[in-house]
Amino acid sequence: MALFSKDIQTMNDLFVHTLQDVYYAEHQITEALPKMIEKATSPQLRQGFETHLRETEGQIRRLEQVFEMHGEKPKQVTCPAINGIIKEANEIAGDVGDKDVLDAALAAAAQAVEHYEISRYGSLAAWAKELGRHDCAQLLEQTLAEEKATDAKLTEMAEARLNRQAA
Amino acid sequence: MALFSKDIQTMNDLFVHTLQDVYYAEHQITEALPKMIEKATSPQLRQGFETHLRETEGQIRRLEQVFEMHGEKPKQVTCPAINGIIKEANEIAGDVGDKDVLDAALAAAAQAVEHYEISRYGSLAAWAKELGRHDCAQLLEQTLAEEKATDAKLTEMAEARLNRQAA
Repeated sequence: MALFSKDIQTMNDLFVHTLQDVYYAEHQITEALPKMIEKATSPQLRQGFETHLRETEGQIRRLEQVFEMHGEKPKQVTCPAINGIIKEANEIAGDVGDKDVLDAALAAAAQAVEHYEISRYGSLAAWAKELGRHDCAQLLEQTLAEEKATDAKLTEMAEARLNRQAA
Repeated sequence: MALFSKDIQTMNDLFVHTLQDVYYAEHQITEALPKMIEKATSPQLRQGFETHLRETEGQIRRLEQVFEMHGEKPKQVTCPAINGIIKEANEIAGDVGDKDVLDAALAAAAQAVEHYEISRYGSLAAWAKELGRHDCAQLLEQTLAEEKATDAKLTEMAEARLNRQAA
């Protein structure tokens, strides 16, 4: 959420601005994921990222539907939060020596991304309802459910590492 | 996670580096919260932020305990993710005109911060267990539970807005 905040006077302004913020974030994620796929060594993690890339593309289409339903043109505004999260992911991924450690770092970076999205889609769905746009809320909640499922899968992978080690 | 990533070779390096990252993040949050308290108009939101500020100070002490238990000196490394999240919060909070809209934006910004912390403490607790440091994991999980509770309270406030409006 940046630059345009002076224009935010109503809940509708806040809703549209945050849609634009997340629309930007999702595009950044589609650019970051291929690099993460390339770096991941565990086939399970790599496959998880590939699935998430396809899901993210679907989430972009869903955001475009929400814009359209709400009478707005899809537009991106720079989101410093996702830029910071991805910058951190790239920095950590760039130079970890051991491949298992790199996989753990990549999975954690992906969870930071997921949690950012969970917080934003949660707010957007609540605001859509507040604005009486239950149709938009329903689409936003579909994405929210996908993000939560992806986060849960990444947590499972972290637990599986632990169990493998204990065995 | 920045700058020092070349030194990350083992799960222990990743664990310590992420502790330093979160230690930096918590300090940034204690600087950001007083400004958010000042801007919040709903007494409930303001009180929520005040409680969270005290909790954050406790979480910093708890991180210092974890560093000490693990034989490390508490140290901060710059965390681009939290910097981005706080930058976004400041930008949005700076210029929203209406006080109810500002409260909604502030609560959402706080949830983005909470979710970042939830993802990091979740990873740290899992890695502590992987390293056989169940004592550290226990402390990290205490903070994780606090962050989840704060996020749930903020969601309740968003839902209360909705119900107030429907009434």
